[in-house]
Amino acid sequence: MIKVGVAGYGVIGQRLADGVALQKDMELVGVADVSPTLAVRALKEKGMPYNLYNALPGNETLFAEAGIPVSGTLEELVQKVDIMLDATSAGVGAKNKEIYAKYNKKAIFQGGEKNSVADVFFHGYANYEKGIDKQFLKLTSCNTTGLIRAVDCLDREVGVEKVAITIIRRVADPGDYHRGLTNALQVEKAPSHQALDLMTIMPHVNATGILVHTPVTHGHIISVVATTKKKINKAETLSFFRKHPRIRVVSLSEGFLGNASLFRYARDLGNPRGDMYEIAVWEDSVVESGNDIMFVINIPQEAVVIPENMDAIRAATSMQTDKAAGVAATNNYLGLGKWLKK
Amino acid sequence: MIKVGVAGYGVIGQRLADGVALQKDMELVGVADVSPTLAVRALKEKGMPYNLYNALPGNETLFAEAGIPVSGTLEELVQKVDIMLDATSAGVGAKNKEIYAKYNKKAIFQGGEKNSVADVFFHGYANYEKGIDKQFLKLTSCNTTGLIRAVDCLDREVGVEKVAITIIRRVADPGDYHRGLTNALQVEKAPSHQALDLMTIMPHVNATGILVHTPVTHGHIISVVATTKKKINKAETLSFFRKHPRIRVVSLSEGFLGNASLFRYARDLGNPRGDMYEIAVWEDSVVESGNDIMFVINIPQEAVVIPENMDAIRAATSMQTDKAAGVAATNNYLGLGKWLKK
Amino acid sequence: MIKVGVAGYGVIGQRLADGVALQKDMELVGVADVSPTLAVRALKEKGMPYNLYNALPGNETLFAEAGIPVSGTLEELVQKVDIMLDATSAGVGAKNKEIYAKYNKKAIFQGGEKNSVADVFFHGYANYEKGIDKQFLKLTSCNTTGLIRAVDCLDREVGVEKVAITIIRRVADPGDYHRGLTNALQVEKAPSHQALDLMTIMPHVNATGILVHTPVTHGHIISVVATTKKKINKAETLSFFRKHPRIRVVSLSEGFLGNASLFRYARDLGNPRGDMYEIAVWEDSVVESGNDIMFVINIPQEAVVIPENMDAIRAATSMQTDKAAGVAATNNYLGLGKWLKK
Amino acid sequence: MIKVGVAGYGVIGQRLADGVALQKDMELVGVADVSPTLAVRALKEKGMPYNLYNALPGNETLFAEAGIPVSGTLEELVQKVDIMLDATSAGVGAKNKEIYAKYNKKAIFQGGEKNSVADVFFHGYANYEKGIDKQFLKLTSCNTTGLIRAVDCLDREVGVEKVAITIIRRVADPGDYHRGLTNALQVEKAPSHQALDLMTIMPHVNATGILVHTPVTHGHIISVVATTKKKINKAETLSFFRKHPRIRVVSLSEGFLGNASLFRYARDLGNPRGDMYEIAVWEDSVVESGNDIMFVINIPQEAVVIPENMDAIRAATSMQTDKAAGVAATNNYLGLGKWLKK
Repeated sequence: MIKVGVAGYGVIGQRLADGVALQKDMELVGVADVSPTLAVRALKEKGMPYNLYNALPGNETLFAEAGIPVSGTLEELVQKVDIMLDATSAGVGAKNKEIYAKYNKKAIFQGGEKNSVADVFFHGYANYEKGIDKQFLKLTSCNTTGLIRAVDCLDREVGVEKVAITIIRRVADPGDYHRGLTNALQVEKAPSHQALDLMTIMPHVNATGILVHTPVTHGHIISVVATTKKKINKAETLSFFRKHPRIRVVSLSEGFLGNASLFRYARDLGNPRGDMYEIAVWEDSVVESGNDIMFVINIPQEAVVIPENMDAIRAATSMQTDKAAGVAATNNYLGLGKWLKK
Repeated sequence: MIKVGVAGYGVIGQRLADGVALQKDMELVGVADVSPTLAVRALKEKGMPYNLYNALPGNETLFAEAGIPVSGTLEELVQKVDIMLDATSAGVGAKNKEIYAKYNKKAIFQGGEKNSVADVFFHGYANYEKGIDKQFLKLTSCNTTGLIRAVDCLDREVGVEKVAITIIRRVADPGDYHRGLTNALQVEKAPSHQALDLMTIMPHVNATGILVHTPVTHGHIISVVATTKKKINKAETLSFFRKHPRIRVVSLSEGFLGNASLFRYARDLGNPRGDMYEIAVWEDSVVESGNDIMFVINIPQEAVVIPENMDAIRAATSMQTDKAAGVAATNNYLGLGKWLKK
Repeated sequence: MIKVGVAGYGVIGQRLADGVALQKDMELVGVADVSPTLAVRALKEKGMPYNLYNALPGNETLFAEAGIPVSGTLEELVQKVDIMLDATSAGVGAKNKEIYAKYNKKAIFQGGEKNSVADVFFHGYANYEKGIDKQFLKLTSCNTTGLIRAVDCLDREVGVEKVAITIIRRVADPGDYHRGLTNALQVEKAPSHQALDLMTIMPHVNATGILVHTPVTHGHIISVVATTKKKINKAETLSFFRKHPRIRVVSLSEGFLGNASLFRYARDLGNPRGDMYEIAVWEDSVVESGNDIMFVINIPQEAVVIPENMDAIRAATSMQTDKAAGVAATNNYLGLGKWLKK
Repeated sequence: MIKVGVAGYGVIGQRLADGVALQKDMELVGVADVSPTLAVRALKEKGMPYNLYNALPGNETLFAEAGIPVSGTLEELVQKVDIMLDATSAGVGAKNKEIYAKYNKKAIFQGGEKNSVADVFFHGYANYEKGIDKQFLKLTSCNTTGLIRAVDCLDREVGVEKVAITIIRRVADPGDYHRGLTNALQVEKAPSHQALDLMTIMPHVNATGILVHTPVTHGHIISVVATTKKKINKAETLSFFRKHPRIRVVSLSEGFLGNASLFRYARDLGNPRGDMYEIAVWEDSVVESGNDIMFVINIPQEAVVIPENMDAIRAATSMQTDKAAGVAATNNYLGLGKWLKK
């Protein structure tokens, strides 16, 4: 049993912890945070299903005042695990890395950290083999993770030469008050980092893109114009996506009208926290543009990176040294692709 | 075991079904809807935990085409139950009533129907006794249900003479595409129906109010100015609310910054669908206005009426002929007030 | 002096009237609407700078009760003009056409009408010559009008073979309460009508696209991937756009962060109603995608079609039978391209 | 002719400058800002109708690079005027005060500064006389300014003892990207500063209130429960408001459905920048609550404080030492109350 700890119990950290808890071949030793946030208070109200560690020495009294039991410090947690998932705020991971290195532990960082924090920039489907037995991995961000799933899917089928993406980015998560946008679309300098990151992971693809922020909280939408090595039509494109356990093909006629429909559907499915691990492709969005194929995907930003993080644990700790076996184990424990059996 | 059916499997109907399924002294016989909506498709993807009935004869093929098993018609469902919860669109309930009456079944209608559809306009805490053994009950709407909880709470402690309310109404539910508002506040003709409805249920209170629609999806916020028979201060007010199993007292310092924090917290608690049954009162909002007391409550519109609907089943079927016993059973099965034991 | 009337005094109709009033070689005879809307009440509060006609016989008393002077009926207005600009709700224009035909008048319809209502589907820059001396013209919708400006600009410089567009559509205008979207992105069936319309006007271009609705009110944003006959780089692309009097090149460093910045800028310029006739291209958005060029434009939906409507009057009435002269006259009277002289 | 300068050419500063320019008995000497913001660029595109001064020595090159002519420094501007309107960011005004004091000039600060910056906390209608001949005045913030207009109006008619207010606050201005809120209502600690500020200006009134932030940009909405010394009914209340030149009584039936309708109406009126100086009261919102009167007002946050700032210049410089004369001059030059003649 691989022992895993989680540093940072925020939007991503909570879901990483839940994800690890679902992997029957992993043990979640505990989670760490710096103060009694709402997420930590919810953990307490649930009866402390996960042990909590204090990531900021000196804050013990804050936890005590809130009546929240603490099992030790982050440094103590690190010593008990084989690998840490670091989901702290951007920049903190680089600092935490010193602790991980001190005890010679492996660690996985999230998209907010600089690439230089890690030995490899990782994506479960696109470059699993590069993560094998590495000490420090960095995962792609939510948009890039989802985008690569779709592009890699086509790439393995017919080869992808080029992609031009338009990211319609949700600007905050539900419950965020520290950031937001009101009645405005915001344009970012092109090319977007997601396109550049895709090229780092998939260097044989020419990628560029533009990102526009929108004042919503449920799911990024990415429009992709892909130039494939062999021209494919709508039906072929959909057949490729339909086989992928981390991609759900949906349609307007079923009632999936946009990102908010997918959020509602995940809640109605009874998914924990109303989350969705899979990206969605709209059947109705797939169109041919000359020899290119164009389509739209939905990225459920809160949970989309969880599967690839589980893959990363598998690769880094050599639980599975074969990509197919690694991602299959993750998919199995997270229930990904269950809908394909319908 | 009281046998219950649910007509209309939308936002409210799904939650009514879940609520009934949690009542160990009730049996959920099935749910009915008119077409394979997203909610129905989610039911199927979950493996049909509830039997589904077709509420619109002629639509059998629609369900069949979507691969959704149907157990019969709404009329057949009605014959198998003791009582129906009708959560269909406004106006449909009045039509369905003919079926309920034909088979001499009891039924509970939601806030969207006209008062005349029922024998009594019902609220679990405020007038439980009036619902006992009645055939047709109508529940208060989400805002009124939550508002009455708070006003009734103070009324039982010190007596309430008058309330002036300002409802900051969320305009859509998460996932709604059939209604919405963009960058606008919308004023409604005063007095709001919620104030009038409160007076119907609590005729000894003088109530008026103004409603303003806001472009958000998580939780109405109501500001209440209450004139009590005996002047109360902030500490007393909070102590009354803190005892109530369907009211949660929260504070800004804990991280509850607004309606979206409560939504996030419910998700982080692992509540099914990320729902919350209880209203919230902000500790920081309670202020004295001369002899009046003023405060702000949050109404989680999707699930707030579920407890009072369970109460209504208990009253209408005489499962409990005593209010205290009736609401306590509901609270117990729904886990309401668990947080009070902390 | 060409005599012009405007039917429908809503968001577009008001701006058409203002636009005609600015053309020194045209005379605005009057505007018509069916009831004392807010726009009509504003006209009255301004002292009736335009004569108002009643477009719905029977509604005279409505206007009288609101104290609004009426100069006659729509049919009477039609008889006094050379050409009508019809900006009524979709479908009404087709009905009004009978009146225009009865008096053998010319008329220009807006994007909401079916193409079959007109003899030619018109865009000032792209096919001016097709509108010359025609009786009935239909203008492209706001998104298509702005999009064609940009694509036609590149087409005339280097030739455009193909465009793949992603439209991030604002869902309502400021002040709209009859439509809206709240915290949701909405995907439409592809290809979008704007791509199809572009091909109707510019049949030599292969166009497709995807449209996503966003809950904002200021300006559509369109991402364009254009395949040109001759590869062009960023600097060349910008130099082409910078010469165009109906395109404004802006940058993030100047403070133009998104569609709302442009709306604010138009207000700060003192433009009537805070309007902007020109589309904007973000300098920072232009990137090469292999041999294609990619960029983002802003479409100020309330006013963008006004210049092309003025062009349409000029073409239909043969005021200028030469495109260059026609659009130059419009640009001059509307002050378009003034910023180029800086 | 009183000579006026404006420091800070942002949302408020631009409108103060426009307001001064409209006062025929004042001369706008110039405006000052620290860098070539969008507002400054718009000033340049308009041909520099106002002289611009550099408020941050060292930034001359920034202006030069943007091609914007500068007439000197803020300190030079101060020496040329009788009085400065300071609309800089909160806290900067206190620093600028040193310059104003150095040259013994008068100055008027905005709501963002601390009360201690000024000799008197000023509101044109409520305490004009206190501002007469004072050197430093501080104006109330936008919400408080509008609120006091309404409360003072009733107070002068029948006496106001107590108000309990609920502020539904717009969270950003159109065009703001530095702040915003997405799909969330945010509760603030009560009592709100607006209630406290009202009591500072009107010490005989007991005021408290709660503020909730909403994700919109057009106009705050305030719900007021007022306890008057003499009970008044709806008709009387409206008759008082209808006489006030800075209050517009509107109704749903006219088409004023909310704050966005008022914004649209101001644009359609042709008001510069689409601004509105007056607050609005909804006829449909006025209801009696026992002996209290309850109603809803709209606060157009961008321009509402301009009239009271003009009043402040008049009082501080003793242009008019009588309130009635002072506010009448302001109203006349700004066109306030014109609609009353209808």
